Amino acid sequence: MPRSVDALLEVLDLEDIEVDLFRGRSPETSLQRVFGGQVAAQALVAAGRTVVPERTVHSLHAYFLRPGDPDRPIVYDGDRLRDGRAFTTRRVVARQHGRPIFTMSASFQVAEPGLEHEDAMPDVPGADELADARAALGPGTGPWVDWWRDWLPLEVRLVPPTDEGRTRVWLRPSGALPDDPLLHVCVLAYASDLTLLTSTLARHPGVQREQVQLASLDHAMWFHRPVRADGWLLFDQASPSASGGRGLGTGRVFAAEGTLVASVVQEGLVRPPR
Amino acid sequence: MPRSVDALLEVLDLEDIEVDLFRGRSPETSLQRVFGGQVAAQALVAAGRTVVPERTVHSLHAYFLRPGDPDRPIVYDGDRLRDGRAFTTRRVVARQHGRPIFTMSASFQVAEPGLEHEDAMPDVPGADELADARAALGPGTGPWVDWWRDWLPLEVRLVPPTDEGRTRVWLRPSGALPDDPLLHVCVLAYASDLTLLTSTLARHPGVQREQVQLASLDHAMWFHRPVRADGWLLFDQASPSASGGRGLGTGRVFAAEGTLVASVVQEGLVRPPR
Repeated sequence: MPRSVDALLEVLDLEDIEVDLFRGRSPETSLQRVFGGQVAAQALVAAGRTVVPERTVHSLHAYFLRPGDPDRPIVYDGDRLRDGRAFTTRRVVARQHGRPIFTMSASFQVAEPGLEHEDAMPDVPGADELADARAALGPGTGPWVDWWRDWLPLEVRLVPPTDEGRTRVWLRPSGALPDDPLLHVCVLAYASDLTLLTSTLARHPGVQREQVQLASLDHAMWFHRPVRADGWLLFDQASPSASGGRGLGTGRVFAAEGTLVASVVQEGLVRPPR
Repeated sequence: MPRSVDALLEVLDLEDIEVDLFRGRSPETSLQRVFGGQVAAQALVAAGRTVVPERTVHSLHAYFLRPGDPDRPIVYDGDRLRDGRAFTTRRVVARQHGRPIFTMSASFQVAEPGLEHEDAMPDVPGADELADARAALGPGTGPWVDWWRDWLPLEVRLVPPTDEGRTRVWLRPSGALPDDPLLHVCVLAYASDLTLLTSTLARHPGVQREQVQLASLDHAMWFHRPVRADGWLLFDQASPSASGGRGLGTGRVFAAEGTLVASVVQEGLVRPPR
Protein backbone atom coordinates (compact mmCIF):
# COMPACT_ATOMS: atom_id res chain seq x y z
CA MET A 1 0.00 0.00 0.00
CA PRO A 2 2.43 2.65 -1.24
CA ARG A 3 1.36 6.34 -1.36
CA SER A 4 5.01 6.74 -2.34
CA VAL A 5 5.90 8.46 -5.58
CA ASP A 6 8.12 5.48 -6.39
CA ALA A 7 5.00 3.42 -7.09
CA LEU A 8 3.86 6.04 -9.60
CA LEU A 9 7.29 6.12 -11.26
CA GLU A 10 7.18 2.34 -11.58
CA VAL A 11 3.79 2.57 -13.31
CA LEU A 12 5.21 5.12 -15.76
CA ASP A 13 8.28 3.03 -16.57
CA LEU A 14 6.95 1.09 -19.58
CA GLU A 15 8.56 -2.06 -20.92
CA ASP A 16 9.87 -1.84 -24.52
CA ILE A 17 8.41 -4.69 -26.60
CA GLU A 18 9.33 -3.56 -30.11
CA VAL A 19 9.79 -0.25 -31.92
CA ASP A 20 6.65 1.81 -31.07
CA LEU A 21 5.22 -1.02 -28.94
CA PHE A 22 5.19 -0.84 -25.14
CA ARG A 23 3.69 -2.65 -22.18
CA GLY A 24 2.59 -1.10 -18.91
CA ARG A 25 1.48 -2.60 -15.63
CA SER A 26 -1.13 -1.49 -13.13
CA PRO A 27 -0.46 -1.50 -9.41
CA GLU A 28 -2.36 -3.81 -7.11
CA THR A 29 -4.98 -1.58 -5.48
CA SER A 30 -8.60 -1.68 -4.38
CA LEU A 31 -9.75 -0.36 -7.79
CA GLN A 32 -11.63 -2.79 -10.00
CA ARG A 33 -10.93 -0.66 -13.11
CA VAL A 34 -7.66 1.00 -14.03
CA PHE A 35 -7.60 4.70 -13.05
CA GLY A 36 -8.03 6.72 -16.26
CA GLY A 37 -5.18 9.08 -15.42
CA GLN A 38 -2.81 6.11 -15.33
CA VAL A 39 -3.77 5.03 -18.87
CA ALA A 40 -3.45 8.60 -20.18
CA ALA A 41 -0.04 9.01 -18.52
CA GLN A 42 1.26 5.64 -19.74
CA ALA A 43 0.05 6.39 -23.29
CA LEU A 44 1.86 9.73 -23.17
CA VAL A 45 5.06 7.97 -22.04
CA ALA A 46 4.67 5.62 -25.02
CA ALA A 47 4.13 8.52 -27.46
CA GLY A 48 6.97 10.58 -25.99
CA ARG A 49 9.49 7.75 -26.22
CA THR A 50 9.16 7.80 -30.01
CA VAL A 51 9.94 11.52 -30.27
CA VAL A 52 13.33 13.24 -29.95
CA PRO A 53 13.61 15.05 -26.59
CA GLU A 54 14.07 18.45 -28.29
CA ARG A 55 10.39 18.25 -29.27
CA THR A 56 8.10 18.58 -26.29
CA VAL A 57 4.44 17.69 -26.06
CA HIS A 58 2.03 20.64 -26.35
CA SER A 59 -1.32 18.83 -26.61
CA LEU A 60 -3.11 15.51 -26.40
CA HIS A 61 -6.63 14.29 -27.26
CA ALA A 62 -7.93 10.96 -25.99
CA TYR A 63 -11.03 8.77 -25.74
CA PHE A 64 -11.67 6.17 -23.06
CA LEU A 65 -13.26 3.23 -24.91
CA ARG A 66 -13.53 0.45 -22.31
CA PRO A 67 -12.63 0.02 -18.65
CA GLY A 68 -9.05 -1.14 -18.09
CA ASP A 69 -8.45 -4.48 -16.35
CA PRO A 70 -5.94 -3.91 -13.52
CA ASP A 71 -4.96 -7.61 -13.43
CA ARG A 72 -3.58 -7.62 -16.96
CA PRO A 73 -0.77 -5.57 -18.53
CA ILE A 74 -1.81 -2.88 -21.03
CA VAL A 75 -0.16 -2.84 -24.46
CA TYR A 76 0.47 0.61 -26.00
CA ASP A 77 0.76 0.49 -29.79
CA GLY A 78 2.18 3.64 -31.40
CA ASP A 79 1.64 5.08 -34.87
CA ARG A 80 3.99 7.77 -36.26
CA LEU A 81 1.35 9.94 -37.87
CA ARG A 82 3.71 12.72 -38.89
CA ASP A 83 7.27 13.98 -38.47
CA GLY A 84 7.23 17.51 -39.79
CA ARG A 85 9.65 20.40 -39.71
CA ALA A 86 8.24 21.99 -36.56
CA PHE A 87 5.65 19.45 -35.33
CA THR A 88 5.55 15.72 -34.65
CA THR A 89 2.24 13.87 -34.21
CA ARG A 90 1.76 10.47 -32.66
CA ARG A 91 -1.17 8.17 -32.03
CA VAL A 92 -1.23 5.46 -29.39
CA VAL A 93 -3.87 2.75 -28.96
CA ALA A 94 -4.02 0.97 -25.60
CA ARG A 95 -5.16 -2.63 -25.89
CA GLN A 96 -6.28 -5.38 -23.51
CA HIS A 97 -7.98 -8.70 -24.22
CA GLY A 98 -7.59 -8.05 -27.95
CA ARG A 99 -9.61 -4.86 -27.91
CA PRO A 100 -8.78 -1.13 -27.76
CA ILE A 101 -9.53 0.35 -24.34
CA PHE A 102 -8.15 3.86 -25.01
CA THR A 103 -6.90 5.91 -27.94
CA MET A 104 -4.81 9.06 -27.81
CA SER A 105 -3.21 11.45 -30.27
CA ALA A 106 -0.52 13.85 -29.12
CA SER A 107 1.46 16.63 -30.78
CA PHE A 108 5.06 17.66 -30.08
CA GLN A 109 6.84 20.83 -31.17
CA VAL A 110 10.33 22.28 -31.51
CA ALA A 111 10.65 25.28 -29.17
CA GLU A 112 10.03 28.60 -30.93
CA PRO A 113 9.25 32.15 -29.78
CA GLY A 114 5.83 33.77 -30.20
CA LEU A 115 3.19 36.05 -28.76
CA GLU A 116 2.86 35.73 -24.99
CA HIS A 117 -0.21 36.04 -22.78
CA GLU A 118 -1.83 33.99 -20.05
CA ASP A 119 -4.79 34.06 -17.69
CA ALA A 120 -3.93 35.22 -14.18
CA MET A 121 -4.09 32.77 -11.27
CA PRO A 122 -7.13 33.27 -9.05
CA ASP A 123 -6.48 34.60 -5.56
CA VAL A 124 -6.79 31.53 -3.32
CA PRO A 125 -5.21 30.28 -0.09
CA GLY A 126 -1.88 28.51 -0.63
CA ALA A 127 -1.65 24.74 -0.29
CA ASP A 128 0.29 25.06 2.97
CA GLU A 129 -2.64 26.89 4.58
CA LEU A 130 -5.09 24.06 3.80
CA ALA A 131 -5.70 20.63 5.31
CA ASP A 132 -4.85 17.34 3.64
CA ALA A 133 -7.99 16.13 1.83
CA ARG A 134 -7.24 12.58 2.89
CA ALA A 135 -8.11 13.49 6.46
CA ALA A 136 -11.54 14.67 5.25
CA LEU A 137 -12.37 11.30 3.69
CA GLY A 138 -13.58 10.07 7.07
CA PRO A 139 -14.18 6.45 7.96
CA GLY A 140 -16.05 5.68 4.70
CA THR A 141 -14.99 2.73 2.62
CA GLY A 142 -15.30 1.44 -0.94
CA PRO A 143 -12.86 0.79 -3.80
CA TRP A 144 -12.44 4.47 -4.76
CA VAL A 145 -12.13 5.86 -1.22
CA ASP A 146 -9.75 3.09 -0.21
CA TRP A 147 -7.59 3.73 -3.28
CA TRP A 148 -7.51 7.46 -2.63
CA ARG A 149 -6.66 7.01 1.04
CA ASP A 150 -4.29 4.08 0.83
CA TRP A 151 -2.59 4.13 -2.56
CA LEU A 152 -2.84 7.45 -4.43
CA PRO A 153 0.71 8.93 -4.43
CA LEU A 154 -0.61 12.50 -4.66
CA GLU A 155 -1.18 15.05 -1.92
CA VAL A 156 -4.52 16.83 -2.28
CA ARG A 157 -5.71 20.10 -0.70
CA LEU A 158 -9.24 21.31 -1.45
CA VAL A 159 -9.69 25.09 -1.66
CA PRO A 160 -12.89 26.25 0.10
CA PRO A 161 -15.40 27.33 -2.58
CA THR A 162 -15.75 31.09 -3.16
CA ASP A 163 -16.69 31.65 -6.83
CA GLU A 164 -20.00 29.98 -7.54
CA GLY A 165 -19.66 26.91 -9.72
CA ARG A 166 -15.84 26.71 -9.56
CA THR A 167 -13.95 23.98 -7.72
CA ARG A 168 -10.28 24.46 -6.92
CA VAL A 169 -7.75 21.95 -5.70
CA TRP A 170 -4.00 21.87 -5.07
CA LEU A 171 -2.21 18.66 -6.11
CA ARG A 172 1.38 17.41 -5.95
CA PRO A 173 3.09 14.02 -5.96
CA SER A 174 4.13 12.80 -2.52
CA GLY A 175 7.85 13.13 -3.35
CA ALA A 176 10.36 14.60 -5.81
CA LEU A 177 10.49 13.49 -9.45
CA PRO A 178 13.57 12.85 -11.61
CA ASP A 179 14.47 15.69 -14.00
CA ASP A 180 13.10 14.10 -17.22
CA PRO A 181 10.64 16.77 -18.57
CA LEU A 182 8.38 14.14 -20.24
CA LEU A 183 7.87 12.50 -16.85
CA HIS A 184 6.64 15.77 -15.33
CA VAL A 185 4.07 16.22 -18.10
CA CYS A 186 2.93 12.61 -17.64
CA VAL A 187 2.47 13.13 -13.89
CA LEU A 188 0.44 16.25 -14.69
CA ALA A 189 -1.73 14.18 -17.05
CA TYR A 190 -2.14 11.54 -14.34
CA ALA A 191 -3.24 14.15 -11.79
CA SER A 192 -5.58 15.93 -14.23
CA ASP A 193 -8.00 12.98 -14.30
CA LEU A 194 -8.49 12.95 -10.52
CA THR A 195 -10.89 15.78 -9.68
CA LEU A 196 -12.04 17.41 -12.94
CA LEU A 197 -15.36 15.57 -13.29
CA THR A 198 -16.44 16.40 -9.75
CA SER A 199 -16.68 20.01 -11.00
CA THR A 200 -19.83 18.92 -12.88
CA LEU A 201 -21.55 18.46 -9.50
CA ALA A 202 -20.72 21.92 -8.15
CA ARG A 203 -23.98 23.36 -9.48
CA HIS A 204 -26.00 20.53 -7.90
CA PRO A 205 -25.42 20.88 -4.16
CA GLY A 206 -28.30 18.51 -3.40
CA VAL A 207 -26.62 15.66 -5.27
CA GLN A 208 -24.15 13.50 -3.34
CA ARG A 209 -20.97 12.35 -5.09
CA GLU A 210 -21.62 8.75 -4.01
CA GLN A 211 -25.04 8.72 -5.69
CA VAL A 212 -23.70 9.59 -9.12
CA GLN A 213 -21.93 7.36 -11.61
CA LEU A 214 -18.94 9.38 -12.88
CA ALA A 215 -16.71 8.01 -15.67
CA SER A 216 -14.27 9.78 -18.00
CA LEU A 217 -15.31 9.72 -21.66
CA ASP A 218 -12.52 11.75 -23.19
CA HIS A 219 -9.55 13.88 -22.17
CA ALA A 220 -7.85 16.82 -23.85
CA MET A 221 -4.86 18.79 -22.59
CA TRP A 222 -2.79 21.69 -23.81
CA PHE A 223 0.62 22.23 -22.23
CA HIS A 224 1.34 25.93 -22.49
CA ARG A 225 4.67 26.20 -20.71
CA PRO A 226 7.38 23.94 -19.20
CA VAL A 227 6.24 22.52 -15.88
CA ARG A 228 7.79 20.86 -12.86
CA ALA A 229 4.99 18.60 -11.63
CA ASP A 230 6.56 17.89 -8.23
CA GLY A 231 5.67 21.31 -6.86
CA TRP A 232 2.10 22.25 -5.93
CA LEU A 233 -0.21 22.75 -8.91
CA LEU A 234 -3.55 24.59 -8.65
CA PHE A 235 -6.40 23.07 -10.67
CA ASP A 236 -9.06 25.76 -11.23
CA GLN A 237 -12.10 23.84 -12.48
CA ALA A 238 -15.58 24.65 -13.77
CA SER A 239 -18.40 22.96 -15.65
CA PRO A 240 -20.06 24.99 -18.42
CA SER A 241 -22.67 22.33 -19.17
CA ALA A 242 -24.31 19.06 -18.19
CA SER A 243 -27.07 17.31 -20.11
CA GLY A 244 -27.98 13.94 -21.61
CA GLY A 245 -26.19 12.00 -18.87
CA ARG A 246 -22.92 13.79 -19.63
CA GLY A 247 -21.07 16.71 -18.05
CA LEU A 248 -18.18 18.83 -19.27
CA GLY A 249 -15.32 19.82 -16.95
CA THR A 250 -12.80 22.49 -17.88
CA GLY A 251 -9.66 23.26 -15.93
CA ARG A 252 -6.76 25.68 -15.87
CA VAL A 253 -3.57 24.45 -14.20
CA PHE A 254 -1.31 26.97 -12.50
CA ALA A 255 2.14 26.46 -10.99
CA ALA A 256 2.36 27.76 -7.41
CA GLU A 257 4.15 30.96 -8.49
CA GLY A 258 1.24 31.84 -10.78
CA THR A 259 2.23 30.62 -14.26
CA LEU A 260 -0.53 29.06 -16.37
CA VAL A 261 1.08 25.76 -17.34
CA ALA A 262 -1.79 23.81 -18.89
CA SER A 263 -5.48 23.70 -19.84
CA VAL A 264 -7.57 20.55 -19.60
CA VAL A 265 -11.06 19.66 -20.79
CA GLN A 266 -12.86 16.42 -20.10
CA GLU A 267 -16.34 15.14 -20.71
CA GLY A 268 -17.66 12.44 -18.45
CA LEU A 269 -20.60 10.21 -17.98
CA VAL A 270 -22.58 11.81 -15.14
CA ARG A 271 -25.43 9.43 -14.38
CA PRO A 272 -27.66 10.71 -11.59
CA PRO A 273 -29.44 8.56 -9.02
CA ARG A 274 -32.39 6.74 -10.62
CA MET B 1 -18.69 32.19 -56.93
CA PRO B 2 -21.62 31.02 -54.77
CA ARG B 3 -22.14 32.38 -51.24
CA SER B 4 -25.20 30.15 -51.47
CA VAL B 5 -25.76 27.48 -48.87
CA ASP B 6 -26.24 25.00 -51.74
CA ALA B 7 -22.49 25.09 -52.34
CA LEU B 8 -21.88 24.14 -48.72
CA LEU B 9 -24.43 21.32 -48.91
CA GLU B 10 -22.68 20.02 -52.03
CA VAL B 11 -19.35 19.97 -50.16
CA LEU B 12 -20.95 18.01 -47.31
CA ASP B 13 -22.55 15.43 -49.65
CA LEU B 14 -19.74 12.83 -49.72
CA GLU B 15 -19.48 10.12 -52.32
CA ASP B 16 -19.71 6.52 -51.01
CA ILE B 17 -16.68 4.52 -52.22
CA GLU B 18 -16.97 1.42 -50.03
CA VAL B 19 -18.22 0.61 -46.53
CA ASP B 20 -16.58 3.21 -44.22
CA LEU B 21 -14.77 4.85 -47.17
CA PHE B 22 -15.88 8.20 -48.57
CA ARG B 23 -14.66 10.86 -50.98
CA GLY B 24 -15.25 14.60 -50.67
CA ARG B 25 -14.59 17.45 -53.04
CA SER B 26 -13.46 21.01 -52.39
CA PRO B 27 -15.09 23.94 -54.13
CA GLU B 28 -13.13 26.06 -56.58
CA THR B 29 -12.22 29.18 -54.59
CA SER B 30 -9.34 31.60 -54.15
CA LEU B 31 -7.94 29.51 -51.25
CA GLN B 32 -4.70 27.67 -51.90
CA ARG B 33 -5.31 25.30 -48.97
CA VAL B 34 -8.58 23.64 -48.06
CA PHE B 35 -10.43 25.51 -45.28
CA GLY B 36 -9.99 23.48 -42.06
CA GLY B 37 -13.66 23.71 -41.15
CA GLN B 38 -14.51 21.97 -44.42
CA VAL B 39 -12.26 18.99 -43.62
CA ALA B 40 -13.64 18.74 -40.08
CA ALA B 41 -17.23 18.89 -41.34
CA GLN B 42 -16.64 16.34 -44.12
CA ALA B 43 -14.90 13.98 -41.66
CA LEU B 44 -17.89 14.29 -39.33
CA VAL B 45 -20.25 13.45 -42.20
CA ALA B 46 -18.12 10.35 -42.88
CA ALA B 47 -18.16 9.29 -39.22
CA GLY B 48 -21.87 9.99 -38.83
CA ARG B 49 -22.84 7.95 -41.89
CA THR B 50 -21.50 4.82 -40.18
CA VAL B 51 -23.65 5.33 -37.06
CA VAL B 52 -27.38 4.68 -36.65
CA PRO B 53 -29.31 7.99 -36.56
CA GLU B 54 -30.64 7.29 -33.03
CA ARG B 55 -27.08 7.91 -31.77
CA THR B 56 -26.07 11.53 -32.09
CA VAL B 57 -22.58 12.98 -31.95
CA HIS B 58 -21.63 14.56 -28.62
CA SER B 59 -17.91 15.20 -29.13
CA LEU B 60 -15.04 15.20 -31.60
CA HIS B 61 -11.25 15.54 -31.32
CA ALA B 62 -9.09 16.23 -34.37
CA TYR B 63 -5.59 17.10 -35.51
CA PHE B 64 -4.70 18.95 -38.70
CA LEU B 65 -1.60 17.17 -40.03
CA ARG B 66 -0.94 18.73 -43.45
CA PRO B 67 -2.56 21.42 -45.61
CA GLY B 68 -5.35 20.10 -47.83
CA ASP B 69 -4.99 20.40 -51.60
CA PRO B 70 -8.19 21.97 -53.00
CA ASP B 71 -7.54 20.60 -56.51
CA ARG B 72 -7.75 16.97 -55.43
CA PRO B 73 -10.60 15.03 -53.77
CA ILE B 74 -10.11 14.07 -50.13
CA VAL B 75 -10.60 10.44 -49.12
CA TYR B 76 -12.12 9.82 -45.67
CA ASP B 77 -11.28 6.39 -44.27
CA GLY B 78 -13.35 5.30 -41.26
CA ASP B 79 -12.50 2.94 -38.42
CA ARG B 80 -15.27 1.52 -36.19
CA LEU B 81 -13.43 1.84 -32.88
CA ARG B 82 -16.33 0.78 -30.72
CA ASP B 83 -20.07 0.00 -30.80
CA GLY B 84 -21.12 -0.09 -27.16
CA ARG B 85 -24.44 -0.22 -25.37
CA ALA B 86 -24.74 3.55 -24.91
CA PHE B 87 -21.79 4.96 -26.89
CA THR B 88 -20.35 4.54 -30.38
CA THR B 89 -16.84 5.76 -31.23
CA ARG B 90 -15.46 6.33 -34.71
CA ARG B 91 -12.13 7.42 -36.14
CA VAL B 92 -11.71 8.97 -39.57
CA VAL B 93 -8.43 9.65 -41.38
CA ALA B 94 -8.50 12.12 -44.27
CA ARG B 95 -5.95 11.31 -46.96
CA GLN B 96 -4.51 13.05 -50.02
CA HIS B 97 -1.48 12.21 -52.14
CA GLY B 98 -1.02 8.99 -50.12
CA ARG B 99 -0.60 10.78 -46.80
CA PRO B 100 -2.90 11.62 -43.88
CA ILE B 101 -3.83 15.31 -43.81
CA PHE B 102 -6.26 15.15 -40.87
CA THR B 103 -7.39 12.68 -38.22
CA MET B 104 -10.53 12.83 -36.12
CA SER B 105 -12.21 10.72 -33.47
CA ALA B 106 -15.85 11.30 -32.62
CA SER B 107 -18.26 9.83 -30.09
CA PHE B 108 -21.99 9.24 -30.46
CA GLN B 109 -24.54 8.46 -27.77
CA VAL B 110 -28.07 7.15 -27.34
CA ALA B 111 -30.24 9.88 -25.80
CA GLU B 112 -30.59 9.57 -22.02
CA PRO B 113 -31.69 11.89 -19.21
CA GLY B 114 -29.24 13.41 -16.69
CA LEU B 115 -28.30 16.39 -14.59
CA GLU B 116 -28.94 19.70 -16.34
CA HIS B 117 -27.02 22.96 -16.14
CA GLU B 118 -25.54 25.41 -18.62
CA ASP B 119 -23.64 28.68 -18.72
CA ALA B 120 -25.86 31.70 -19.41
CA MET B 121 -25.51 33.57 -22.69
CA PRO B 122 -23.69 36.90 -22.34
CA ASP B 123 -25.78 40.02 -22.82
CA VAL B 124 -24.86 41.23 -26.31
CA PRO B 125 -26.61 43.01 -29.19
CA GLY B 126 -28.63 40.68 -31.42
CA ALA B 127 -27.37 39.78 -34.89
CA ASP B 128 -30.09 41.88 -36.50
CA GLU B 129 -28.75 45.02 -34.77
CA LEU B 130 -25.25 44.53 -36.23
CA ALA B 131 -23.74 45.14 -39.64
CA ASP B 132 -22.67 42.40 -42.06
CA ALA B 133 -18.94 41.79 -41.48
CA ARG B 134 -18.43 41.39 -45.21
CA ALA B 135 -19.06 45.09 -45.68
CA ALA B 136 -16.24 45.80 -43.21
CA LEU B 137 -13.69 43.85 -45.25
CA GLY B 138 -13.09 46.92 -47.40
CA PRO B 139 -11.35 46.89 -50.75
CA GLY B 140 -8.48 44.64 -49.53
CA THR B 141 -7.59 41.56 -51.49
CA GLY B 142 -5.78 38.25 -51.02
CA PRO B 143 -6.86 34.57 -51.09
CA TRP B 144 -8.45 34.62 -47.61
CA VAL B 145 -10.27 37.94 -47.96
CA ASP B 146 -11.49 37.04 -51.46
CA TRP B 147 -12.76 33.68 -50.20
CA TRP B 148 -14.54 35.27 -47.27
CA ARG B 149 -16.15 37.97 -49.43
CA ASP B 150 -16.93 35.96 -52.55
CA TRP B 151 -17.45 32.34 -51.53
CA LEU B 152 -18.11 31.79 -47.81
CA PRO B 153 -21.78 30.74 -47.50
CA LEU B 154 -22.06 32.11 -43.95
CA GLU B 155 -23.35 35.43 -42.73
CA VAL B 156 -21.09 37.01 -40.12
CA ARG B 157 -21.85 39.78 -37.60
CA LEU B 158 -19.06 40.93 -35.28
CA VAL B 159 -20.16 42.00 -31.78
CA PRO B 160 -18.35 45.18 -30.64
CA PRO B 161 -15.87 44.18 -27.90
CA THR B 162 -16.95 44.92 -24.31
CA ASP B 163 -15.35 42.30 -22.03
CA GLU B 164 -11.59 42.58 -22.27
CA GLY B 165 -10.01 39.67 -24.08
CA ARG B 166 -13.29 38.18 -25.40
CA THR B 167 -14.32 38.22 -29.05
CA ARG B 168 -17.91 37.52 -29.99
CA VAL B 169 -19.43 36.83 -33.35
CA TRP B 170 -22.82 35.79 -34.73
CA LEU B 171 -22.76 33.27 -37.56
CA ARG B 172 -25.42 31.57 -39.71
CA PRO B 173 -25.51 29.89 -43.11
CA SER B 174 -26.88 32.08 -45.89
CA GLY B 175 -30.00 29.92 -46.29
CA ALA B 176 -32.09 27.17 -44.68
CA LEU B 177 -30.73 23.66 -44.18
CA PRO B 178 -32.55 20.33 -44.68
CA ASP B 179 -33.83 18.70 -41.48
CA ASP B 180 -31.07 16.04 -41.13
CA PRO B 181 -29.66 16.63 -37.58
CA LEU B 182 -26.17 15.38 -38.54
CA LEU B 183 -25.99 18.06 -41.23
CA HIS B 184 -26.70 20.81 -38.68
CA VAL B 185 -23.89 19.61 -36.43
CA CYS B 186 -21.53 19.45 -39.43
CA VAL B 187 -22.38 23.02 -40.41
CA LEU B 188 -21.68 24.07 -36.82
CA ALA B 189 -18.30 22.31 -37.02
CA TYR B 190 -17.61 24.09 -40.33
CA ALA B 191 -18.43 27.49 -38.82
CA SER B 192 -16.46 26.85 -35.63
CA ASP B 193 -13.12 26.95 -37.48
CA LEU B 194 -13.74 30.41 -38.93
CA THR B 195 -13.04 32.94 -36.18
CA LEU B 196 -11.81 31.06 -33.08
CA LEU B 197 -8.08 31.59 -33.60
CA THR B 198 -8.46 35.33 -34.07
CA SER B 199 -9.40 35.38 -30.36
CA THR B 200 -5.69 34.74 -29.64
CA LEU B 201 -4.94 38.25 -30.97
CA ALA B 202 -7.48 40.07 -28.76
CA ARG B 203 -4.87 40.67 -26.06
CA HIS B 204 -2.38 42.05 -28.60
CA PRO B 205 -4.07 45.16 -30.01
CA GLY B 206 -0.79 46.32 -31.59
CA VAL B 207 -0.55 43.20 -33.75
CA GLN B 208 -2.35 43.24 -37.11
CA ARG B 209 -4.15 40.10 -38.28
CA GLU B 210 -2.39 40.28 -41.65
CA GLN B 211 1.06 40.22 -40.03
CA VAL B 212 0.46 36.95 -38.20
CA GLN B 213 0.54 33.41 -39.59
CA LEU B 214 -2.54 31.66 -38.15
CA ALA B 215 -3.13 27.95 -38.79
CA SER B 216 -5.33 25.45 -36.97
CA LEU B 217 -3.38 22.67 -35.21
CA ASP B 218 -6.23 20.78 -33.58
CA HIS B 219 -9.96 21.02 -32.99
CA ALA B 220 -12.18 19.71 -30.20
CA MET B 221 -15.93 20.12 -29.86
CA TRP B 222 -18.58 19.04 -27.41
CA PHE B 223 -22.21 19.15 -28.55
CA HIS B 224 -24.29 19.70 -25.45
CA ARG B 225 -27.77 19.94 -26.88
CA PRO B 226 -29.61 19.49 -30.20
CA VAL B 227 -28.97 22.44 -32.49
CA ARG B 228 -30.47 23.92 -35.62
CA ALA B 229 -27.46 25.49 -37.33
CA ASP B 230 -29.47 27.58 -39.78
CA GLY B 231 -30.48 30.11 -37.14
CA TRP B 232 -28.05 32.66 -35.74
CA LEU B 233 -25.39 31.17 -33.41
CA LEU B 234 -23.34 33.28 -31.02
CA PHE B 235 -19.68 32.29 -30.69
CA ASP B 236 -18.31 33.67 -27.40
CA GLN B 237 -14.54 33.29 -27.69
CA ALA B 238 -11.49 33.85 -25.49
CA SER B 239 -7.83 32.90 -25.38
CA PRO B 240 -6.45 31.78 -22.00
CA SER B 241 -2.88 31.45 -23.27
CA ALA B 242 -0.38 32.05 -26.06
CA SER B 243 3.27 31.03 -26.01
CA GLY B 244 5.85 29.13 -28.04
CA GLY B 245 4.35 30.22 -31.38
CA ARG B 246 0.98 28.74 -30.41
CA GLY B 247 -2.26 30.16 -29.05
CA LEU B 248 -5.32 28.51 -27.52
CA GLY B 249 -8.84 29.61 -28.41
CA THR B 250 -11.88 28.53 -26.40
CA GLY B 251 -15.46 29.14 -27.44
CA ARG B 252 -19.00 28.68 -26.18
CA VAL B 253 -21.71 28.46 -28.81
CA PHE B 254 -25.20 29.72 -27.97
CA ALA B 255 -28.39 29.46 -29.99
CA ALA B 256 -30.12 32.83 -30.43
CA GLU B 257 -32.69 32.09 -27.71
CA GLY B 258 -29.87 31.54 -25.18
CA THR B 259 -29.28 27.77 -25.05
CA LEU B 260 -25.65 26.65 -24.76
CA VAL B 261 -25.43 24.21 -27.68
CA ALA B 262 -21.69 23.50 -27.90
CA SER B 263 -18.19 24.16 -26.59
CA VAL B 264 -15.14 24.34 -28.83
CA VAL B 265 -11.40 24.48 -28.14
CA GLN B 266 -8.71 24.91 -30.74
CA GLU B 267 -4.98 25.46 -30.61
CA GLY B 268 -3.35 27.19 -33.53
CA LEU B 269 -0.01 28.18 -34.84
CA VAL B 270 0.25 31.91 -34.09
CA ARG B 271 3.51 33.07 -35.67
CA PRO B 272 4.11 36.76 -35.10
CA PRO B 273 5.85 39.11 -37.53
CA ARG B 274 9.59 38.42 -37.60
